Amino acid sequence: MDTDMTNIFGIRAIIEAIESGSTINKIYLQKGLRGELFYKLDKLIKEKKLTTSMVPVEKLNRLSKNSNHQGAVAQISPVEFVDLEILIENTLQKSDSPLFLLLDQISDVRNFGAIIRTAECTGVNGIIIQKNGSAPVNAETIKTSAGAAFKVPICKVDHIKDAVFMLQASEIKTVAATEKTEDSIFDINFKQPTAIIMGSEHRGVNPSILKMVDSKAKLPLLGEIASLNVSVACGAFLYETVRQRTKTK
Amino acid sequence: MDTDMTNIFGIRAIIEAIESGSTINKIYLQKGLRGELFYKLDKLIKEKKLTTSMVPVEKLNRLSKNSNHQGAVAQISPVEFVDLEILIENTLQKSDSPLFLLLDQISDVRNFGAIIRTAECTGVNGIIIQKNGSAPVNAETIKTSAGAAFKVPICKVDHIKDAVFMLQASEIKTVAATEKTEDSIFDINFKQPTAIIMGSEHRGVNPSILKMVDSKAKLPLLGEIASLNVSVACGAFLYETVRQRTKTK
Repeated sequence: MDTDMTNIFGIRAIIEAIESGSTINKIYLQKGLRGELFYKLDKLIKEKKLTTSMVPVEKLNRLSKNSNHQGAVAQISPVEFVDLEILIENTLQKSDSPLFLLLDQISDVRNFGAIIRTAECTGVNGIIIQKNGSAPVNAETIKTSAGAAFKVPICKVDHIKDAVFMLQASEIKTVAATEKTEDSIFDINFKQPTAIIMGSEHRGVNPSILKMVDSKAKLPLLGEIASLNVSVACGAFLYETVRQRTKTK
Repeated sequence: MDTDMTNIFGIRAIIEAIESGSTINKIYLQKGLRGELFYKLDKLIKEKKLTTSMVPVEKLNRLSKNSNHQGAVAQISPVEFVDLEILIENTLQKSDSPLFLLLDQISDVRNFGAIIRTAECTGVNGIIIQKNGSAPVNAETIKTSAGAAFKVPICKVDHIKDAVFMLQASEIKTVAATEKTEDSIFDINFKQPTAIIMGSEHRGVNPSILKMVDSKAKLPLLGEIASLNVSVACGAFLYETVRQRTKTK
């Protein structure tokens, strides 16, 4: 699944990539690495809160196509992530009705890709994901997104909560998609500046986030199945927003 | 992907399964089969227009877990298909505003599963697929559908065209989802009895079907990407239908 990723290898090359601001998806390390250079890398990994994985040397050989990897291979994300503050600021400058999408730990790559694609088609100004627990922006994601991952700004934040606070501080209405409400999506006003929050495949939007948001909204479920696929549900929310906003013009 | 399917093997067992009305997904045959029993099976396959595939003996050994397969293994579909005429008749009897979904050769199993799931959640009375070119109703489909494949009636027809004719004859409005129109989904009336037609991942709704339908409708695309994932688009159509129908009550 990650074979189309850009991999860089060698401890020094990885240090340089981090220092030059490249977006590192994951760093694969061989167990028992030592030495001054490795300690420098390790310090950077901790500073930047990068994701690492301890793997057998055979995996490193494969990832680096048997190059001299020195026990370390980094996957560089081909998508550049943006800073949330800058995204909000830029969006408020150019749009009267910003639309943001927060993904609370969507973990399936195909769902994530389909959501990015829908976001591009519905004029979403930016997608905000959490560093931990989210599907990576890898080759499979980009493929499923039909290339939309290069077009919609994506932010990675430490906690979705912080993003909710920041959006609320900018007077952007936060709406969580959840079945734990009596309010139907069709009764919500999406015309004002809005951020829609979609929850993970298995547990939905985190309860602590549900407590913070301005509105909760559910899609009517007319059958016996208790929930929709998250990318389908997200599409229904985004197109209801498009409908309301188109109708006013 | 098909590993959870119920496989039956041996020519006689397969003949019995067909004669007892089991829904056969596909029959795997070894090349060069002969003999009276095989000719009987072959005749049944042609009568019932069943799908077959010629495969090496190794595949048959694997599918039958090295049992005595006699050169033939059949995948039994765990979902029972319904007849279109009966489906329409039954639906018209119990509902004032029937809603059908026609899938014109959706070939990806995960898309198909997600669509069945959405159909169940939006009160679709039946899904109509074409025998050829459609994703099978297999274990993966059932899994992605969250079990909805057992709850929503599914019809297999020889040609989607025939189904369009039959629905129109019953005064059910046919609406094709396509970008090849100026009409927005939000201008279509979905309150009356409706059948929505979704096209395949790669070429959309077949042009010959676009000529037949009562309406064509597109989802607004506000970005640069030319189309949505089909299960997402289908969800937007079905929820617009739910919205319009809920608002009248």
